[in-house]
Amino acid sequence: MNTSCFLALTGGIGGAKLALGLSQLLSADDLALIVNTGDDFQHLGLHISPDIDTLVYTLAGLNNPETGWGRSDETWHFMQALGTLGGETWFSLGDRDLAMNVERSYRLRAGQTLSQVTAALATALGIRHTILPMSDDPVHTRVLTAQGPMDFQHYFVREKCAPAVTGFEFEGIDRARPHPDIEAWLTRPDLAGVFLCPSNPFVSVDPILSLPGLREQLRTCPAPIIAVSPVVGGAAIKGPTVKMMQELSLPNSASWVAEYYRDFLDGFILDTADQALRPEIENMGLTVEVKNTVMVSLEDRVQLARTCLEMAHKIKAVS
Amino acid sequence: MNTSCFLALTGGIGGAKLALGLSQLLSADDLALIVNTGDDFQHLGLHISPDIDTLVYTLAGLNNPETGWGRSDETWHFMQALGTLGGETWFSLGDRDLAMNVERSYRLRAGQTLSQVTAALATALGIRHTILPMSDDPVHTRVLTAQGPMDFQHYFVREKCAPAVTGFEFEGIDRARPHPDIEAWLTRPDLAGVFLCPSNPFVSVDPILSLPGLREQLRTCPAPIIAVSPVVGGAAIKGPTVKMMQELSLPNSASWVAEYYRDFLDGFILDTADQALRPEIENMGLTVEVKNTVMVSLEDRVQLARTCLEMAHKIKAVS
Repeated sequence: MNTSCFLALTGGIGGAKLALGLSQLLSADDLALIVNTGDDFQHLGLHISPDIDTLVYTLAGLNNPETGWGRSDETWHFMQALGTLGGETWFSLGDRDLAMNVERSYRLRAGQTLSQVTAALATALGIRHTILPMSDDPVHTRVLTAQGPMDFQHYFVREKCAPAVTGFEFEGIDRARPHPDIEAWLTRPDLAGVFLCPSNPFVSVDPILSLPGLREQLRTCPAPIIAVSPVVGGAAIKGPTVKMMQELSLPNSASWVAEYYRDFLDGFILDTADQALRPEIENMGLTVEVKNTVMVSLEDRVQLARTCLEMAHKIKAVS
Repeated sequence: MNTSCFLALTGGIGGAKLALGLSQLLSADDLALIVNTGDDFQHLGLHISPDIDTLVYTLAGLNNPETGWGRSDETWHFMQALGTLGGETWFSLGDRDLAMNVERSYRLRAGQTLSQVTAALATALGIRHTILPMSDDPVHTRVLTAQGPMDFQHYFVREKCAPAVTGFEFEGIDRARPHPDIEAWLTRPDLAGVFLCPSNPFVSVDPILSLPGLREQLRTCPAPIIAVSPVVGGAAIKGPTVKMMQELSLPNSASWVAEYYRDFLDGFILDTADQALRPEIENMGLTVEVKNTVMVSLEDRVQLARTCLEMAHKIKAVS
């Protein structure tokens, strides 16, 4: 696969795990990671990019494996002092994590784009693979709930996902231009696969797919497009995916996810726990692999990445 | 002195020590502290107010007695992480100190004035005396040096005061309105004294005195105005006062300071090391006290504050 390149679409924690696996198998020039920015928000005057940072910290080996967000070996003196001053403390920013947020905000105010800032800070941390924020234009995911619409982080962090979800809005999406390199990657003649990491379909993947023209570009992309199911045995590994499905009266099943992406999808990776769903998804016209998708160890991440690459190779050979 | 109130003009470290002494002797309603904002600057997208913070931390008992700036019991994880990201690290911001700077910057961007923010944050830390930033309008002290003009913090922190000084500019001073409460305090019928704390005359006190109309208001103020010498035995306790005097070809003597403030001054407190200067300063028409002005202990701070109050009382009784 030396002359092949790959793209992956990812949100935060689960997606970043697979992205790490892919980064272990592919050289820097052969992998680009498109990351959701719909949950970016302004907080304390800072530009917070939760999914970018989870991905960057994960690839740099600085992530906190317990929380899934933020950095390992973190301290919280800023937050403690902020609380004493009467500042907002519902969103936790560790002392080291704060450097990322302050420096990003500073560079953005100085006129750099989110892509430029992200590339520079990732490079500073030793990351060599390409990270593409889905857009340099602001997109704000709003969660529509029984208690009214709320900013994603308010729903996710402050309200701990408690409000019942009725829908989603991606404010600014109509005016948001996809990162220009996305199209360049999607049309590279050596593109050998596009992967949808196991991220929340509603708030991690959908903002990316909703960028003007992007879903259509995926539909016409000649390379195999493969999704890894974010739902395992009717549950999500982490996060509110299944709770959202239930509140939206959708079946909390990997099949629903496959169906949701079906218009552009070629392959689907099901967890072994969901083996029984295989025929149903194959009936959608998709190639299906059944594997362990629960990534506990680094080896799990690499193994799932290897499955993705092999499956892309296989689908391409057949077509 | 129950029905008397007092004003003090202060810069950073030395001034804050005397301010703390005064705060121990005077009730919250009877003391206002006018603090220099000429060395405020924008750094990493944050609004840094070094003298305000030194004063606030000193009054709140949170100051770092070793450095003279920042907070005691501080950690530096933000700075370490910032360095790894390739950010600017010449200006040290501790993890706890950062909360003050982030919260201030956030509130300023939200439209609050520096006075409002300062009052709210000082109150949150339990400070009850009035702190008046000299102006809500931006004033930037620039140090003119043999190497060209430079922002004060660049001169002071990055260049460690090494460049030879040829003069000073207070950018924005002509358009800066003094904090409105300054005039209110200066015209209070119960005003019984105005103190110039032992701060650098050039970069701590002069920005305040250079505010439109302020020096004239001091000249016509009926209350006694008393300065504590920032020069002791030809040296400064801390900071570049004497180095600046020498580079400006000024005598590095407490007498020069008295002369510099003479047009509005009534009294001058000399250190015992400078007893010999007494006749010279008395010849300027000033009342002189000779006392220990080197504040090592809290008792020293309170004792010097007591000297200030007693001297103001004595001058008023005579006049």
